Amino acid sequence: MKIVLIGAGNLATQLAFALQEQGYDLRQVFSRTEQSAALLANQLHLPYTTSLEEVEADADLYIASLKDDALMSRAAEIVRGKNRDALFIHTAGSVPMSVWEGHATHYGVIYPMQTFSKQRRVSFREIPMFVEANGETERQQLLELARSLSTKVYEASTEQRRQLHLTAVFVCNFVNHMYAIGEHLLSAHDLPFESMYPLMKETLEKVLSGMNPSAAQTGPAVRYDEGVMSKHEALLADHPEWQQLYQMISKSIHHDKLRSEQN
Amino acid sequence: MKIVLIGAGNLATQLAFALQEQGYDLRQVFSRTEQSAALLANQLHLPYTTSLEEVEADADLYIASLKDDALMSRAAEIVRGKNRDALFIHTAGSVPMSVWEGHATHYGVIYPMQTFSKQRRVSFREIPMFVEANGETERQQLLELARSLSTKVYEASTEQRRQLHLTAVFVCNFVNHMYAIGEHLLSAHDLPFESMYPLMKETLEKVLSGMNPSAAQTGPAVRYDEGVMSKHEALLADHPEWQQLYQMISKSIHHDKLRSEQN
Repeated sequence: MKIVLIGAGNLATQLAFALQEQGYDLRQVFSRTEQSAALLANQLHLPYTTSLEEVEADADLYIASLKDDALMSRAAEIVRGKNRDALFIHTAGSVPMSVWEGHATHYGVIYPMQTFSKQRRVSFREIPMFVEANGETERQQLLELARSLSTKVYEASTEQRRQLHLTAVFVCNFVNHMYAIGEHLLSAHDLPFESMYPLMKETLEKVLSGMNPSAAQTGPAVRYDEGVMSKHEALLADHPEWQQLYQMISKSIHHDKLRSEQN
Repeated sequence: MKIVLIGAGNLATQLAFALQEQGYDLRQVFSRTEQSAALLANQLHLPYTTSLEEVEADADLYIASLKDDALMSRAAEIVRGKNRDALFIHTAGSVPMSVWEGHATHYGVIYPMQTFSKQRRVSFREIPMFVEANGETERQQLLELARSLSTKVYEASTEQRRQLHLTAVFVCNFVNHMYAIGEHLLSAHDLPFESMYPLMKETLEKVLSGMNPSAAQTGPAVRYDEGVMSKHEALLADHPEWQQLYQMISKSIHHDKLRSEQN
């Protein structure tokens, strides 16, 4: 199976390494940006192109890992002139599978649930992969591909994938932003952010050990300790945006508790 | 050194186990609630009382782990009638050391940076402890006590401890609430929350490995991908509170990026 990579971002980079490690026959890298294309292609010892028209026509699998709007606007162009029997897939959480409809004959999605950096190698074995395909043959092909990379393969519709992506924003990007605010607060007061690491680990460990996160909640908001909360808000007087976040998230924690008590 | 525990909550419970493991001479448990007092005292094979007047007068160390307002209003009463040479400490992030001033002669604070549940045993060896004391002798005593429990002992003023507590709310309680929202979103769409675990782990691992959280940020908000963000907001139409959080946290992530680019 000859594979062409359309895109050379963080996800494309890590996926490419994983595919090559499994012995897949990667043929070419496309990226609109010369620098990204060259960087990835050199690491993989592959040729690259910055023009969609120069993408190899006879591959068996085209994997598009582009920004959502680029994928939406260029799906037709990606398929045009290529092998009619090829399988076209993308890897985006919020782009429907139907982006390929009317252009490709065989298509689908493999959505890996992970946050990728170009620098950090991640093992795909543990990364959940969500598969969607436009037919039974395509489904079997994609399940096989996904299972060759990961032990955790699920199927998810376009609608479910959207919810997965939205959830990922909360449990990854938003969580990371809470870390970022914490780091800023401590460094402004000459305190080591490392002193928060055991707390951050235990917060995650509780949930990984099976505690429901709502039930695991602690702290002033869930106790609705207004004394502590108003002191904290006062400490954030110089950061009105974080102050507002503090108030809103505390309120949301409290409402979550009231809802769970009703059930 | 004879120790009396004033309070039988999550922190008091875990601290008591750690002290007893290290061979400290715990003498008595006080809690206003009979049930909490009995539960902890039985586990420690200690007597308990629900009346401050019946607390042993001749201990060397009184450790108060009460809710902030209880501590503020009862500090004088805790000290009254006790051994004048005893050391009085509390374990609260947002209560000043001066809560003991005018009541006790020797006093201070040991603030362990961790989230405690009654059920989950945690090892104190890795838990950062922040010490404050009202004099050099007291400081040495508390540093020694803290170092016998943990390898990570720091000193922090009342003002710094407030910032630590505020930061803990962001990196623990608020992070946990992001997990809770994620869990609610997925369970409403029949998707397994476990599929988020590797993402949650990697989000933390990046920061533990030394990446600055602001620099480690990924996702639609930091790219300012309005297409994805408006789709996500639409998905949250039935949850106006989470929708508003989505918008505000995304904005805050974007502003954080702009600030870091200016520096």
